Amino acid sequence: MADELDGILTVDFEPLGRRARVARGTTLLEAARQAGVGLNAVCGGTGTCETCRVRVVAGQVIPPFPPSPPSPPSPPSEYEGFWLACQTRVLSDVRVDVPPASVTALQRAQIEGRERRVELDPAVRWFDVASEPPSLSDLRADVTRLRDALPLPSGEGQEEVRFDHGVQCQLPALLRGQAWRARLVVQDGEVIAAMPVSTPPLGLAVDIGTTKLAAYLVDLASGETLAAAGAMNPQITYGEDVMARIAYAMGGEPRARELQRVLVGELDDLTHKLCAQAGRDVAEIVEAVLVGNTCMHHLVLGLPVEQLGLAPYVPVLADPYDLKARELGLRLAPGANVHLLPNIAGFVGADHVAMVLATGIHEACEVTVGLDIGTNTEISLAVGGPALSPSAPLGVNSAEGPALSRVEGRLLSCSCASGPAFEGAHIRDGMRAAPGAVEWVRLADGQVEYQTIDGAPPVGLCGSGVLDGVAELLKAGVVRANGAMKQGSHPRVRGAGSETEFLLVPTGERGAPHDLAITRKDVNEIQLAKGAIRAGIEVLLEEAGLKAEQIERVVVAGAFGTYLDVGSALAVGMFPPLPRERFVQVGNAAGIGAKMALVSRHCRRVAEEIARRVEYVELTTHPRFVEAYTAALMLPEPGEVIS
Amino acid sequence: MADELDGILTVDFEPLGRRARVARGTTLLEAARQAGVGLNAVCGGTGTCETCRVRVVAGQVIPPFPPSPPSPPSPPSEYEGFWLACQTRVLSDVRVDVPPASVTALQRAQIEGRERRVELDPAVRWFDVASEPPSLSDLRADVTRLRDALPLPSGEGQEEVRFDHGVQCQLPALLRGQAWRARLVVQDGEVIAAMPVSTPPLGLAVDIGTTKLAAYLVDLASGETLAAAGAMNPQITYGEDVMARIAYAMGGEPRARELQRVLVGELDDLTHKLCAQAGRDVAEIVEAVLVGNTCMHHLVLGLPVEQLGLAPYVPVLADPYDLKARELGLRLAPGANVHLLPNIAGFVGADHVAMVLATGIHEACEVTVGLDIGTNTEISLAVGGPALSPSAPLGVNSAEGPALSRVEGRLLSCSCASGPAFEGAHIRDGMRAAPGAVEWVRLADGQVEYQTIDGAPPVGLCGSGVLDGVAELLKAGVVRANGAMKQGSHPRVRGAGSETEFLLVPTGERGAPHDLAITRKDVNEIQLAKGAIRAGIEVLLEEAGLKAEQIERVVVAGAFGTYLDVGSALAVGMFPPLPRERFVQVGNAAGIGAKMALVSRHCRRVAEEIARRVEYVELTTHPRFVEAYTAALMLPEPGEVIS
Repeated sequence: MADELDGILTVDFEPLGRRARVARGTTLLEAARQAGVGLNAVCGGTGTCETCRVRVVAGQVIPPFPPSPPSPPSPPSEYEGFWLACQTRVLSDVRVDVPPASVTALQRAQIEGRERRVELDPAVRWFDVASEPPSLSDLRADVTRLRDALPLPSGEGQEEVRFDHGVQCQLPALLRGQAWRARLVVQDGEVIAAMPVSTPPLGLAVDIGTTKLAAYLVDLASGETLAAAGAMNPQITYGEDVMARIAYAMGGEPRARELQRVLVGELDDLTHKLCAQAGRDVAEIVEAVLVGNTCMHHLVLGLPVEQLGLAPYVPVLADPYDLKARELGLRLAPGANVHLLPNIAGFVGADHVAMVLATGIHEACEVTVGLDIGTNTEISLAVGGPALSPSAPLGVNSAEGPALSRVEGRLLSCSCASGPAFEGAHIRDGMRAAPGAVEWVRLADGQVEYQTIDGAPPVGLCGSGVLDGVAELLKAGVVRANGAMKQGSHPRVRGAGSETEFLLVPTGERGAPHDLAITRKDVNEIQLAKGAIRAGIEVLLEEAGLKAEQIERVVVAGAFGTYLDVGSALAVGMFPPLPRERFVQVGNAAGIGAKMALVSRHCRRVAEEIARRVEYVELTTHPRFVEAYTAALMLPEPGEVIS
Repeated sequence: MADELDGILTVDFEPLGRRARVARGTTLLEAARQAGVGLNAVCGGTGTCETCRVRVVAGQVIPPFPPSPPSPPSPPSEYEGFWLACQTRVLSDVRVDVPPASVTALQRAQIEGRERRVELDPAVRWFDVASEPPSLSDLRADVTRLRDALPLPSGEGQEEVRFDHGVQCQLPALLRGQAWRARLVVQDGEVIAAMPVSTPPLGLAVDIGTTKLAAYLVDLASGETLAAAGAMNPQITYGEDVMARIAYAMGGEPRARELQRVLVGELDDLTHKLCAQAGRDVAEIVEAVLVGNTCMHHLVLGLPVEQLGLAPYVPVLADPYDLKARELGLRLAPGANVHLLPNIAGFVGADHVAMVLATGIHEACEVTVGLDIGTNTEISLAVGGPALSPSAPLGVNSAEGPALSRVEGRLLSCSCASGPAFEGAHIRDGMRAAPGAVEWVRLADGQVEYQTIDGAPPVGLCGSGVLDGVAELLKAGVVRANGAMKQGSHPRVRGAGSETEFLLVPTGERGAPHDLAITRKDVNEIQLAKGAIRAGIEVLLEEAGLKAEQIERVVVAGAFGTYLDVGSALAVGMFPPLPRERFVQVGNAAGIGAKMALVSRHCRRVAEEIARRVEYVELTTHPRFVEAYTAALMLPEPGEVIS
């Protein structure tokens, strides 16, 4: 069949937004590879591992033979209508739905970040106890027996200790199977887990992004990270940004429950994956810390999100919060709690608190801007931490700023809707940061140089690639300050008017399956995104009574923030014109902050203090925002940028 | 069909153990009525209300036409294989399974008891709060807003107040629908319910018996009981006594979960029934107190029961316990807790604690015996309460007792397996206390006098009827001390040897569908049951160093205990020979105790004190028990009894 080449067909992969142009008879697995969609194919495409399942939504294909592969051990309904991509060949243009479970290495890991040393002081403690078995002269209940044996420090009343219901259910079998010895894990006066005495308790930290999840398995005795893993947020099928998810959830309680269910299901899978990596059991995880923006925080808890979508955008819950993992449907140790860091406002959530905690900008002596760039970008401006001694000079390198005493110790935050352009969405040839994505672009002497992730054939542009491209076109005089492209400015410019585009990669170059271009509309998308971020920074500065040049440090966090080229960001005006050495890229700081809160009660107190201290600035109704945004939409003239 | 009388067929109703003898073509509903089985038939048997569903287990019937009635709104699987009794006619001997849901007025209410006045001091408190709506200048989260408005007494930190997760989920809609006013219900520093300000919070008290459930709906503001209802414990299908249930649960976790599921399902139904009676909503119930024997306590909590079936019979949990109703699957207010009173030992549970609490025997100045007679009978012996002043004479009316100082302030308890004979089981013509049950028997001048419940045609004997019958036969000299019947002692004695029986009601008398007799074996069953109770009392007396005649008061609780004739119980030797005026029958004291704990934190503390004070006496291994039991098995000679 593969020889029947009678035309080029398109294969669209949803919800990833990727397209392949392939010959009739090509397998869906091959098409996926061309499109840069990393389908699982453990067996190498022989149809035996059954990991590359996809669902054909529209178009004609030759189905696998036999049409239904042997059922997997998981419930069959989960895979109803799904076929193995490696055994299915296209006969027409087709649209294919790719379940998250079938995707591997979807994106570059955003699970690493700069670790800060914290003193181990987890919220759970554990005690090994041994007791006599019951006898006719000692008829104490199992719970009473263990409580009496619990070697709590003096001053903590044993009689006050409660046993979680799930632990009580396990106790009789555990005690009788372990010769009346057990390790009891205690949190806030409650025994939340009971295990054999040799078991080191584990903790789980998760950063729940709108697009991506990053999870860490931590040994609570050593603080060591035993395993880390990332995954797509499966809610993405219900809307790519926070507002779309809120709109979906407003369609009724079953929809909101569905959003929670798919997310918790993925967290459950991730947890199992982490434990498999580390050779441990999920029942040994005795606490989890979750961070996310306020919407993700509410959705994972099953809290209503309607009011997050309506002015004045207030959350249901802002305080730090503990609840049983089982109440979310998350299977850890029987009585394990989930801790959620506090939210600041409707659009500045616990993930930003975690990022501030991890980067320490709240206690910085310099004037510091912290950004977590994503579909929503949260920005904090710290002006002298509370630890600042009055005599210590702030060292601002400009004499033009106002008297510093007026703004000492302030921490201002805002949130701006930067949109998903930096995630590769709304960009014509955009894609997520997966193998084959153009991630770096330079124009040198009119020649286009570029680099793809993993050196794979170029199939699309990820966020950093688009940003680089726009910056280079601007520097080369191809793009004007208003985003328009100059006809005839470069041989690669083609089309006219709003259809003008710059050809970055012609079909066939390094195996590119189709042309890759940056369009006039793509440039506009980048303008909207960077303009929102820049306007946010400007409004915060104004609120603090500072000028941009007084910023001494810019901390850039988040997946895109890790990989972006600061020079390109400066070139397009995403950040104020500042020397490059003032910028630091810190990786997934929210995830690091979650890990810090997992192993340290002190860090939880600091997080609460951060949330309490923050002065939230609502941009949507801020009198200066529209003006700042309009100004920030323009691209700078090349000469304006310091780099 | 009803005219085709070509023979008499038997219809057995399970698990009730009732039999009807009916003509071919009779409906199952009619047969049920003859057998004294109170099937629901709201529509009067016209096939429209669909409440009389039963399942034909064996034998031939003419099924209803159309064979499948319209599906009820409940899941169809629940009624799979069930037909409407009113539309199904018998063609042969049949066996029919009657689901608890189809049974009405199965037994005489055992939901009444002597109330004690207690000062209202429930574990929940409620506060009406009003707050400003959020605005751009006040972006506090809903939870923060309400907490700030909560008018807690000074000294109780508002900032310490937590909000239950279920309450948080409801808050946004409630606040926005009620103009930012709400009634918050608080327990132990947690907001467990939020409701419109006019709503008086409700409480639920349930006595979970091995055989029967008794439930009460209480207005927590007034302490008034708004509704009361009883039901069968649906676990009865899995074993009629505690040991049978434990054996069933030991068959694997799914079985134990099934026992919990059916019980909680029935509690849920009862709760809805109570609320319908009172015109209220289950979401207004903000706390429940459950009492039951240790096995019922463990089964409703889903705790393992294996160790309750193996010496030394220790519970998993003995302390008073609170957990969220939703953790049991019980739907009350979103954050409502269930409180369980403490257990004393493997076979003396929270229901006995509740009974002691309700009857006040723990604080009695007299030597008091308290009994809760059921399938398992718990007995307490109180010898001077802790409030007893050293100078106050105990007033014991016998000078033969030991020095009282030696036993002051003791409270001893034991449990004995009296079996289900008093519930009408293991008695050939026995039945539960439902309409048509012979409940009172006298032999006067050789004539048999009797009375049935509701004056209905006699269809069987309930516990008090059998007890009366045996007592009367003993007094009349028909039955000997060893339980044998004397041939020729009365014209109604028939059969021989172990088949000897006394005809109580001949077929046709007052509409009796068949003969009712007391058999030699029935007498033996009563001997076993009363012997166990008497032996328990004797062992406790010996442990306390007292003689029977020193008992000043005997408090008899429980359903059977309410209706038994004390004279008959004395005649058969169930109790020590004491003057009748020392006995008091108090009804469902365990249920009353549960209600007291529901409305009074003081009562909960007293219950805990009772459980702590009790000296538990394990009968199965007690050196004197076998001897006492053997002696107690004999029936007294008529002259031995004081009455």
